[in-house]
Amino acid sequence: MVFKVTVSSARRATRTLWLLALVSLPVCISVCRASSPQEDSAMENIVTEKKAEESHRQDSADLLIFILLLTLTILTIWLFKHRRFRFLHETGLAMIYGLIVGVILRYGIIHVPLDVGNITLNCQVNASPATLLVNVSGKFYEYTLKGEISGNDMKDNEMLRKVTFDPEVFFNILLPPIIFHAGYSLKRRHFFRNMGSILAYAFLGTVISCFIIGLLMYGCVTLMKQVGQLNGDFFFTDCLFFGAIVSATDPVTVLAIFNELQVDVDLYALLFGESVLNDAVAVVLSSSIVAYQPEGDNSHTFEVMAMLKSFGIFLGVFSGSFALGVATGIYVVKFFDCGVHVTKFTKLRDFQLLETALFFLMSWSTFLLAEACGFTGVVAVLFCGITQAHYTYNNLSPESQDRTKQLFELLNFLAENFIFSYMGLTLFTFQNHVFNPMFIVGAFHTSFAFVLNHVLTQVALFIGRAANIYPLSFLLNLGRRNKIRSNFQHMMMFAGLRGAMTFALSIRDTATYARQMMFSTTLLVVFFTVWICGGGTTQMLSCQRIRVGVDSDQDNSMSVGEGSERRSTKQESAWLFRIWYNFDHKYPLLNYAKVTSFFPQICCVSLNNLCFFFLQNECQLKDDDSDLILRDGDINLTYGDITVSTDASGAHTSGGPAFAGAATSDDLDRELAYGDHELVMRGTRLVLPMDDSEPPFTEPHHRMRM
Amino acid sequence: MVFKVTVSSARRATRTLWLLALVSLPVCISVCRASSPQEDSAMENIVTEKKAEESHRQDSADLLIFILLLTLTILTIWLFKHRRFRFLHETGLAMIYGLIVGVILRYGIIHVPLDVGNITLNCQVNASPATLLVNVSGKFYEYTLKGEISGNDMKDNEMLRKVTFDPEVFFNILLPPIIFHAGYSLKRRHFFRNMGSILAYAFLGTVISCFIIGLLMYGCVTLMKQVGQLNGDFFFTDCLFFGAIVSATDPVTVLAIFNELQVDVDLYALLFGESVLNDAVAVVLSSSIVAYQPEGDNSHTFEVMAMLKSFGIFLGVFSGSFALGVATGIYVVKFFDCGVHVTKFTKLRDFQLLETALFFLMSWSTFLLAEACGFTGVVAVLFCGITQAHYTYNNLSPESQDRTKQLFELLNFLAENFIFSYMGLTLFTFQNHVFNPMFIVGAFHTSFAFVLNHVLTQVALFIGRAANIYPLSFLLNLGRRNKIRSNFQHMMMFAGLRGAMTFALSIRDTATYARQMMFSTTLLVVFFTVWICGGGTTQMLSCQRIRVGVDSDQDNSMSVGEGSERRSTKQESAWLFRIWYNFDHKYPLLNYAKVTSFFPQICCVSLNNLCFFFLQNECQLKDDDSDLILRDGDINLTYGDITVSTDASGAHTSGGPAFAGAATSDDLDRELAYGDHELVMRGTRLVLPMDDSEPPFTEPHHRMRM
Repeated sequence: MVFKVTVSSARRATRTLWLLALVSLPVCISVCRASSPQEDSAMENIVTEKKAEESHRQDSADLLIFILLLTLTILTIWLFKHRRFRFLHETGLAMIYGLIVGVILRYGIIHVPLDVGNITLNCQVNASPATLLVNVSGKFYEYTLKGEISGNDMKDNEMLRKVTFDPEVFFNILLPPIIFHAGYSLKRRHFFRNMGSILAYAFLGTVISCFIIGLLMYGCVTLMKQVGQLNGDFFFTDCLFFGAIVSATDPVTVLAIFNELQVDVDLYALLFGESVLNDAVAVVLSSSIVAYQPEGDNSHTFEVMAMLKSFGIFLGVFSGSFALGVATGIYVVKFFDCGVHVTKFTKLRDFQLLETALFFLMSWSTFLLAEACGFTGVVAVLFCGITQAHYTYNNLSPESQDRTKQLFELLNFLAENFIFSYMGLTLFTFQNHVFNPMFIVGAFHTSFAFVLNHVLTQVALFIGRAANIYPLSFLLNLGRRNKIRSNFQHMMMFAGLRGAMTFALSIRDTATYARQMMFSTTLLVVFFTVWICGGGTTQMLSCQRIRVGVDSDQDNSMSVGEGSERRSTKQESAWLFRIWYNFDHKYPLLNYAKVTSFFPQICCVSLNNLCFFFLQNECQLKDDDSDLILRDGDINLTYGDITVSTDASGAHTSGGPAFAGAATSDDLDRELAYGDHELVMRGTRLVLPMDDSEPPFTEPHHRMRM
Repeated sequence: MVFKVTVSSARRATRTLWLLALVSLPVCISVCRASSPQEDSAMENIVTEKKAEESHRQDSADLLIFILLLTLTILTIWLFKHRRFRFLHETGLAMIYGLIVGVILRYGIIHVPLDVGNITLNCQVNASPATLLVNVSGKFYEYTLKGEISGNDMKDNEMLRKVTFDPEVFFNILLPPIIFHAGYSLKRRHFFRNMGSILAYAFLGTVISCFIIGLLMYGCVTLMKQVGQLNGDFFFTDCLFFGAIVSATDPVTVLAIFNELQVDVDLYALLFGESVLNDAVAVVLSSSIVAYQPEGDNSHTFEVMAMLKSFGIFLGVFSGSFALGVATGIYVVKFFDCGVHVTKFTKLRDFQLLETALFFLMSWSTFLLAEACGFTGVVAVLFCGITQAHYTYNNLSPESQDRTKQLFELLNFLAENFIFSYMGLTLFTFQNHVFNPMFIVGAFHTSFAFVLNHVLTQVALFIGRAANIYPLSFLLNLGRRNKIRSNFQHMMMFAGLRGAMTFALSIRDTATYARQMMFSTTLLVVFFTVWICGGGTTQMLSCQRIRVGVDSDQDNSMSVGEGSERRSTKQESAWLFRIWYNFDHKYPLLNYAKVTSFFPQICCVSLNNLCFFFLQNECQLKDDDSDLILRDGDINLTYGDITVSTDASGAHTSGGPAFAGAATSDDLDRELAYGDHELVMRGTRLVLPMDDSEPPFTEPHHRMRM
């Protein structure tokens, strides 16, 4: 009976959702149309007012479309979660809904002609300035540049141009919360343990991938040029730029499934860490490729000086943004840290609203500051997030910990789904798409050529990704004790999805023919990877025999006695972790006891630098209180015995002051030992219903390392 | 020792803050200046790119100023809270900081000349269209209208124009969360008990105040015209418009102090309810005054038809927005209500992120939907908030209850402080201020005339407020058993602060001379009321002998035996409450048991109406589960005995199903009786250190009703 009710309720819910979808779309469109011009009035003033009102209504309706799209997406996700559908992630779903609305807007009922209010001025101006002053019978009106539109589109759909957002919105409003959230929610223990590999994948891997894809695409482009299928310029720098933007992986779909199925934490850390960091690398890489300008007449030749300059820009911008992010992150930490000290008197922790607001504002100002200084805000905000997660988080009051986590979780969720639904929408509403019917001259049908184009790009991406993962994994495995196994490598290869960052980078500039073509291709790449690779994740996990159901919180107790083959040594691959760890303990920057002594040396970058010295005084004064502060849980765990036994590793002692002065190498050994023996296989392998080849493993410890 | 540390730490914190203030401002300004043009390149494309980058950096820097301002404000508030300074609220503080930055921007070091990129076009166009297409050597560029600028300002400060936001930002982005939060956090029991009075103050009072102020201002304007001090048109409709916008009170400062000192809950409810609702009334009133257009040549004469039309617009827009807000509110409730039913199977409550996101999106879509339909989004979102607080809130999971409350609290906090700091900034940076040196022809100094102008406006506002409060209170007291005492009336009179809504309404349109003058005057009115009235709240409370320290949560137990003079009768003033109560119980719309039966009759307005019927089926199916749902705590409280005794009123029974069918008049009697006997004076009177005239009352029950 109960089951029956469940089924029928689910069926009804499905029906409701689809009806809601079908009903609300035409409705919201008719709302858009409802803003028809009303009765004309003689007075100019009232006409202007009405026009403004009109335009305002239109804007509201446009935004309403997106809100309804998001609502619809959430409702459907809810249904999916209920039914445990894993083949389509919310982002993929958002894209599908966006696509549907895009089709309706493009080919649907509404073709609002160009507003009569649009007046074309033919003027003798050579450039298109950002601001225009128009002298209308003595009065000056200010106009701001919105962008170039092609001649055809003018007569075309007013509506379509209306639903096209300013590309900077993505880069400056929607991306920062996503990136900050990624940094703030990095699983730090696993991240730091695999830091070396992650950095290798993110830096070397992205650069390799960028150049491989760039070269392959240049080959394609040269071929196209000779066949005569190219209608505009497409230089090698353009190809490299394309390589850079599609090197930013965003396996949000895959990670969501990993999280849900509790896949091996190290694979998760590798994938997540790589995807977070290579976003940052890709942004800086693409901007330094754009900055490549050889002197002389031919601006697209190879020139060593220009290349070195680009390389310098890359290093400068990246390290600058990194330093800024970390510095402001540390500044915030410092602030909240002192807040804790001062707390006993002034109680910032009692005003959770103030605390949360401060946290939010300071994180945002990191982004803005970096952008204002000419650095990359996205990179700065990422490292600010990582720093804050590492230090600040523990200094916040418990309520604020929840609040900040929830706030950024919500912002991330909304921004991500918005971007993906906009992607779907823009496939049909964007005005300057260049879907190039390439390579195939006469014999094949255009749509086939179009598919082939996409396939070739996809192959290039595939090769680029392969050239990133496999050689690097081989090299890393030489140094790592905890090898990255081949099934992990295949999974990482497969999880090379492209997402929000690639889209934001490609939509940022669609002025030239090459960029327009890139944008169109990028859209298709994102669709393909999110739907196909994202949808096939569970199958791939099952196929690669990667275990699921690993409880990362119970690591300590579960792992004991399993990973005995890999005892800690000083030759552990995590040498980067070792360096950082030593540094972090020798110079206890922030939430450790000796807060003040090393500060001025490190944080000279921050805007509010001067303030440090004063805050320092605060802290110095209350040095004796600092013992009461619980330090970062990941670092503070000390173990009674280096030999691994269930009891010892289970007993955490938050021995704050013991560590405070400087970390001995013994401490590190223990830490690494602790970190190391967690690295074992555990959990059950995912067995899909269709996968009958092997019996399911019921005992979690059955299958050992291969 | 501890005390010494406290003092010195506080002193250091103060010093730090001021230094932070002094240091960060020039720094952020120098950041703005840092964006100087870099080396010129021959290629036009790169020039354009650089220009865009430049402009983007500038935008970031501008926004950074505001973020730093907010951060500074929060830090100072923290200090103030520590020191228990109550004379300056955070909003007042935000204004002061805004003012300082405004002065620096205006008269400080930076006077960036107009960008060379600005090209003035002299064209033969009669109107200023919203969108402009400029044909630059074959390519079409789209420009959007930003606004009119006066001739002088063109050569003036580029920077100043940059920090001026689009006025619509305030109305469409910053105001909705403030208003929604106000509706969502209405203390409902006290609000509904005083509903009659609140509605009277909000509707009648606002209209009275609007007309009184309009008439007085018209008198002033006529006088000015005769003296020759008026440089532009100023019609009676303009005066009325001014009356409408300054009738929106916003006693956020006063309410914050009330909350902190726990002032009498009924006074709080009256003030808060009035201020929330009169915002809504003022918005609709001002838009219907703008819509007043008599036919014929002279468009500013009195005409009955036009006035009736305006009145009709007022009624139509208000009731439309109201209905839309309530309908979507109910729709959301309905959704979450069914969510609860369906929960047992699909568990929406388990996905708090989805729940919170849905709640947020649905509330926002109410605003957008209302705007897109031509109604007033602010009004819709207010009633949506009230409806959701009344019904939805209890259907949310506990985590989502916290999340949504905290989210809107944060948004409200940030938006409010942003608006106030922008107000401070704009006093010096706004380009079209008309500070009219009025009334005084030759003898007096301009600044004196300026002060006098302000004083006259202030007097008009004072009289308008008095004509609202006192006569209405007198009339209401005829009907109320629980009289609004004279000290409450004085306090309400005093708490007539103007704030965010007045500002947003006045900055929305600054096209004409009259509107510019209004805007300038409004700014001064806000400054004056927030600083003077807001700062004097504690003094006023003390002076009016209004008790503080009333714990609204302990009402029930505390009030017993005190308010015995006012037993419940059916002639209670809360007849509106009675009607609503009966309706709410007879037609148990939402979170009561019989959810389905009355739905279609009521919610025919909503966009997603069709969906109801399907959701209904869901609910009908699970009618038998509904007993498990706890209903609204405010309504559900039943009392064993109608006679008031400590035990009886303290014992809450959440007897859900007992009420479900229809409320008998006995139920209502009990409810009102319960509501009534709470209305007594309790708590201690606030005694300020300077107030030595009377000894402090230590016993809470000492002073009885006067």
